[in-house]
Amino acid sequence: MQDAAMEVLRNGGTSLAAVTKAISVLEDSPLTNAGFGSNLNLDGIVECDASVMDGLTLTSGAVGCITDVQNPVRVAERLVQKQIQGGLSLGRIPPSILVGPGARQWAEEQNIPLTAEGGLVTESSQRTYLKYKRKLEHQEKRQTADDNIHKKMKTEKDDLVCGEGSGVQDTVGCVCVDGHGNMAAGCSSGGIWMKHTGRMGPAAHYGVGSWAHNGCCNGKPGVAVVSSGGGEHLIKTFLAKMCADNVQKEPNASLAVSSTFKNNFLESEFLSGVEDKHGGVLVLKHLSDDDGFREAEVLWAHTTDSMCIGYQLETHDRPTTFISRLPDSSLPGKSFAMEGKNFKL
Amino acid sequence: MQDAAMEVLRNGGTSLAAVTKAISVLEDSPLTNAGFGSNLNLDGIVECDASVMDGLTLTSGAVGCITDVQNPVRVAERLVQKQIQGGLSLGRIPPSILVGPGARQWAEEQNIPLTAEGGLVTESSQRTYLKYKRKLEHQEKRQTADDNIHKKMKTEKDDLVCGEGSGVQDTVGCVCVDGHGNMAAGCSSGGIWMKHTGRMGPAAHYGVGSWAHNGCCNGKPGVAVVSSGGGEHLIKTFLAKMCADNVQKEPNASLAVSSTFKNNFLESEFLSGVEDKHGGVLVLKHLSDDDGFREAEVLWAHTTDSMCIGYQLETHDRPTTFISRLPDSSLPGKSFAMEGKNFKL
Repeated sequence: MQDAAMEVLRNGGTSLAAVTKAISVLEDSPLTNAGFGSNLNLDGIVECDASVMDGLTLTSGAVGCITDVQNPVRVAERLVQKQIQGGLSLGRIPPSILVGPGARQWAEEQNIPLTAEGGLVTESSQRTYLKYKRKLEHQEKRQTADDNIHKKMKTEKDDLVCGEGSGVQDTVGCVCVDGHGNMAAGCSSGGIWMKHTGRMGPAAHYGVGSWAHNGCCNGKPGVAVVSSGGGEHLIKTFLAKMCADNVQKEPNASLAVSSTFKNNFLESEFLSGVEDKHGGVLVLKHLSDDDGFREAEVLWAHTTDSMCIGYQLETHDRPTTFISRLPDSSLPGKSFAMEGKNFKL
Repeated sequence: MQDAAMEVLRNGGTSLAAVTKAISVLEDSPLTNAGFGSNLNLDGIVECDASVMDGLTLTSGAVGCITDVQNPVRVAERLVQKQIQGGLSLGRIPPSILVGPGARQWAEEQNIPLTAEGGLVTESSQRTYLKYKRKLEHQEKRQTADDNIHKKMKTEKDDLVCGEGSGVQDTVGCVCVDGHGNMAAGCSSGGIWMKHTGRMGPAAHYGVGSWAHNGCCNGKPGVAVVSSGGGEHLIKTFLAKMCADNVQKEPNASLAVSSTFKNNFLESEFLSGVEDKHGGVLVLKHLSDDDGFREAEVLWAHTTDSMCIGYQLETHDRPTTFISRLPDSSLPGKSFAMEGKNFKL
């Protein structure tokens, strides 16, 4: 995935193109919960959410609940390109987000590859769907049959959360800075297992799944952020934008990300009453000056048990990849891990 | 509309119920661009966006591109109620936004009244659709036939903008505070004429179309805001939330709203390059203390040529309604009008 994105950059492509390429590769993998192999919804259908943001023009594009399109992220990228191109006929403004069947229709008009109906479903995702469907039906029967439901629900909840966070079913995201200092961010997700048809998740929400903002001459750093986790928790707290805003305000990026997790997520008034708050971010900060000084910082933070991370500089032969884990003593959903790495460019 | 909402409040209903009722009445009117009589999209279909937010629980519900549901705002209200009720089976989180066919399906499951296919189209909206469709086709022909297209586009753009802002085709919104100091906001819209199918507008975007936040004991006022205008301009600037946040921070509400329009809208970096920025907000601020002191302030601001305003206190027999207009000397899209009114409660 990093190889493909790196090739885009080495060939003079933009950070937006690189992000789109990286996410396309991840969407094509049956192992991620994005594009091919996505989680199925209650009706057994794959509905995908994706967004990208271009930090130079501050333009975001998103698709929500799009079906049967090979790479949802490509539709989001095209929406950005069309907005940058400018006005439509009759004074209409180009859309920033398209949802449902209209999103697929637009993709087709734009010659973005579609799949056959159900073409994003894998054997494995179909099997898991049938398993959860049986669980749901079983539970609905029990709900009328006995009052011992609370214990039952708890067990089954654990099962499902396990399925989500198993490391092979995660939402994907990517952040990038190119040689011109242009920032980009993008993410793609099939959403949570057994979501209601039409439920739009964080990956499609403006300010939630992805955010990018170039730096400027006054010393303000460039920043790109992607988020993943409990959808409605991320949405309510605008996690990606909030994190990016704080990184641009607070000179110490580790402090900015940590305080976002503490103040704007775990202790957010918008999540009061929520017992466990699941979220993670991948952050890229970029600083440069007129004398050619350039520095980048990659940071990741999460309240989830684990989060898969990968990064690569243009000068690196290979990406560095690993799984970040909460310390044993920490409670998932109630505390966070935060780490980062600096690079002189 | 105010009568119906006032009846809800006088019968002990919540501000959320009152807002939903008021917007339902406006949706049922063929004269507004919401629910029945909404603008048609490129394919001649009505797709509605709506959202409500409850300031007590800070819970928002929204529907995007929903078709053939009598009152889209009722679906948004039900989404709030279901989120407040809490978790679904299998550990799933109740959705905050539903889009496309899945939104209609959920409304049906919730016994919210549907219409027949095309039931929100009026004779008048059908006529206007056909007019624009002819214009678009004409323009597409010309585009290949001659290069004098720029002049043509400009003329036709003016026509369309006229249609939108004619005072009988506006998006609707409502803000309310009840006797307990609970704030609520809601809005509903058919979106712009000839939008692409699946284009989700500001009324469905979290933080954009409606925002409500109760006050609290430390002197922080309650606030509710709705916005309307050029969809993508409102979205990019999170206009309702931005305005509400500023009203809660700056003790002088007029200054807070004015500075939002200047700094966060007309001069927003997210709208750089946009020539005309069309937006309007209706703001309700509420202050109270433990000694029974209560004060409310209604404010409205807009960069559009005009904006219809109505308000009513429980002690008033009738609503006060009027059209706020930009001064003759002001340029729409480039400057704003702001006014307000205080009430001791």
